Amino acid sequence: MSAPDVVLGSGSGGKMVAQQLAEAGRSVVLVEDGLVGGYCPYLACVPAKSILLSAHHGLSWVAARAVRDDAAAHRDDAAAAQALRDLGIRILRGRGRVVAEPGTDAPGRIEVTFPDGGTETVEAGLLVLGPGSHAVAPPVPGLDEAPTWTSEEALAADELPGRVLVLGGGAVAVESAQALQRLGSRVTLVQRGEHLLSGEPAWVGETLAGALRADGVEVHVGTTSERVTRAADGWELHLADGTRLGTDRFLLATGRVPSTDGLGLDDRWLREKGAVRVDARCRVVAEDGEVAPEMFAVGDVTGIATYTHAANHQARTVVGEILGRGRDADYSGVPRAVYTSPPVFCVGDTSGEGTRSARFDLADVERAALLETSQGRTIVGGVELFVDDAGVLVGAAAIGEEADAWGAELSLAVRARLDLDLLTHHVRAFPTWSEAILPPLEELRGRTADQAR
Amino acid sequence: MSAPDVVLGSGSGGKMVAQQLAEAGRSVVLVEDGLVGGYCPYLACVPAKSILLSAHHGLSWVAARAVRDDAAAHRDDAAAAQALRDLGIRILRGRGRVVAEPGTDAPGRIEVTFPDGGTETVEAGLLVLGPGSHAVAPPVPGLDEAPTWTSEEALAADELPGRVLVLGGGAVAVESAQALQRLGSRVTLVQRGEHLLSGEPAWVGETLAGALRADGVEVHVGTTSERVTRAADGWELHLADGTRLGTDRFLLATGRVPSTDGLGLDDRWLREKGAVRVDARCRVVAEDGEVAPEMFAVGDVTGIATYTHAANHQARTVVGEILGRGRDADYSGVPRAVYTSPPVFCVGDTSGEGTRSARFDLADVERAALLETSQGRTIVGGVELFVDDAGVLVGAAAIGEEADAWGAELSLAVRARLDLDLLTHHVRAFPTWSEAILPPLEELRGRTADQAR
Repeated sequence: MSAPDVVLGSGSGGKMVAQQLAEAGRSVVLVEDGLVGGYCPYLACVPAKSILLSAHHGLSWVAARAVRDDAAAHRDDAAAAQALRDLGIRILRGRGRVVAEPGTDAPGRIEVTFPDGGTETVEAGLLVLGPGSHAVAPPVPGLDEAPTWTSEEALAADELPGRVLVLGGGAVAVESAQALQRLGSRVTLVQRGEHLLSGEPAWVGETLAGALRADGVEVHVGTTSERVTRAADGWELHLADGTRLGTDRFLLATGRVPSTDGLGLDDRWLREKGAVRVDARCRVVAEDGEVAPEMFAVGDVTGIATYTHAANHQARTVVGEILGRGRDADYSGVPRAVYTSPPVFCVGDTSGEGTRSARFDLADVERAALLETSQGRTIVGGVELFVDDAGVLVGAAAIGEEADAWGAELSLAVRARLDLDLLTHHVRAFPTWSEAILPPLEELRGRTADQAR
Repeated sequence: MSAPDVVLGSGSGGKMVAQQLAEAGRSVVLVEDGLVGGYCPYLACVPAKSILLSAHHGLSWVAARAVRDDAAAHRDDAAAAQALRDLGIRILRGRGRVVAEPGTDAPGRIEVTFPDGGTETVEAGLLVLGPGSHAVAPPVPGLDEAPTWTSEEALAADELPGRVLVLGGGAVAVESAQALQRLGSRVTLVQRGEHLLSGEPAWVGETLAGALRADGVEVHVGTTSERVTRAADGWELHLADGTRLGTDRFLLATGRVPSTDGLGLDDRWLREKGAVRVDARCRVVAEDGEVAPEMFAVGDVTGIATYTHAANHQARTVVGEILGRGRDADYSGVPRAVYTSPPVFCVGDTSGEGTRSARFDLADVERAALLETSQGRTIVGGVELFVDDAGVLVGAAAIGEEADAWGAELSLAVRARLDLDLLTHHVRAFPTWSEAILPPLEELRGRTADQAR
């Protein structure tokens, strides 16, 4: 009997690989030292989005927490584990370490250490790595003595602090800040970069900062955190400019690193920061292109696109490769969505380097005028489109009402490498948000035509 | 001096043509016997959507009416007319009739009859027809004696009837029914076809009927209206099965016909029901392919796709053709959106004839679960995708939360003729409504693979 497939880590990607390999009739062992299903359903996306939706809907903290805990299945993975067992998957609830990597001729060996200290070693005909990532605290002196939350801890918390200081300005930071503020905390957000969502265009982060400030969040960008000290009524963060910001608790959202420490992997498979290097088929590879025999990786540990939907795409890629209908993964159209109010939806190359771009204000479409009059509120947001020299749409950044829905057109357009010619000729419904897409397309097309003369 | 371009009718399409030709430096005469800008901004799309948004937002009738009238500029077209005059456009406020069609050698002649009975005849180097369409009453005996509203009359009304009976089951009918019911009328809707939105899949109309009924609308489908009689407290509609439905007013939404009566056009340019036949460049043509010299048509009068966004697409096509950068119009991706709650968004061929289709329930995506728990409501709706023999997406029907936004991806996919291979390989954001798109794609792809064996 040949050695089973071993999946190390049961997050969105690892779980899908295990499921689909088992459904294909293969023998699968799943090693998980946390919750079966990983962070997403219990401690990340699902409770985070639940809390945000409740906050947007005006629920109280107590109600929102109850809803969150229901959505997160009360962090009980029994049903998820049973569903996998029902497929014939053997689940080992312990921490896995690669003792021997699978070779072309011999299976690998994975040592699993259980919570009680016991161990078991399993053979691995092939190995799929999906150990995920974890938050790291920024190196601010004194922070380690103060009460901190990772986002997972925040999303499992029973209490709502009176004051929260969020360190970071990425998706986790802004979503947490808005949810906690709307649910009753007084939130301060401190970000080192010059604007929120530092990988996206500045105007997107600035628009979002405006929305957070309108909620009452105190937003500081372009700051350096010098140290944390005790204060009479809690804790204080000292900024380089002398400002002191009081808080009861810090939420650490400055970044995450792949969880490969202690995994036993040979260094040649690892990139900087411990990410596992993979090729387009999600096979583990060395920098020189050497492919690890029978080793794959999916999810945050690859450091490519740390989203549930990207992990699932990698999982499908791995399963396809293993089952002999392989196809390269394609990350070009992977959306980067932030579920704040207003939401943010970005895709592709929004750096502005080597591309031309044009922007349009959501307030200038009819839908905005209709909402402003009927609901008495001001519509903020916009969309920026990026095209390459050939006039192909290569990136888009959007923020505004329902952007996580209407942005999907842009993500598909980037993925399908559609050009200005087709995109300007497409008809969008009146009066929808999608109407904001045509004016920047026409502006870019006009400029292309000008250049061609 | 050559004869000016004459645009007959200033709806969305005609107005855009006049604007863009004037901006290109051409001499333009615009003939309009109603409001400059046509129905859309004053008496159709804009007030209709305004009323719907107000109704969805819970406004009272009085508040919603005020908001509607603001959105519709109080049906005052002075600003719109002045904006066109500022471009150098001459506006003749009267009813235009084609006395002589423009020829290859000689300009046409358009006689304009003013409200005071006076006339003026203008030459037309070329002629763009955009006279629009108007509602027709169904042939129900007695209906002509009862108080009726067209949708335009309903959208300009000051009063809210206690009871309204909507005749029809298309977009105008269902949008009116929901808005009036939510604003306080007791609405009954009577539709001859077997389901609402009879051009779309039955399940879409049935889902929508369920939503309307949940609002309190009394929905009758598959009925025959026999006659209208007076009742003690108003009027009654008698159905073929003997049912009598009481009402204070009827809203006529059974259909519209192109407004070509009295326009003076030669019969050879007209199709059944009076629509002007056009080719892909929106040039007027006869059935045998003969092209009318220098005559174009845009908007509802072409009977192709009676939407503001389609009229605008035709307007761009006409302007391109006249300015020498012509390109065929393409209606394949024109969305059919209905702004009810939940909204409907359809595109392409949803007839089910000669295609394969698969459907998915919105309740089965994570976004629905999150909303159901946080907002305590049940999510209804779904999406059905239609592919041709080559696996190309040729149609889609969606109903559900924000479908008018996330449906845009499907409309672009149909327009770009994207196939299952690419569409299944595209990554959609977790947790968005767009996630409902992958399962039916995978189902169709699986079936395609099966067939290929």
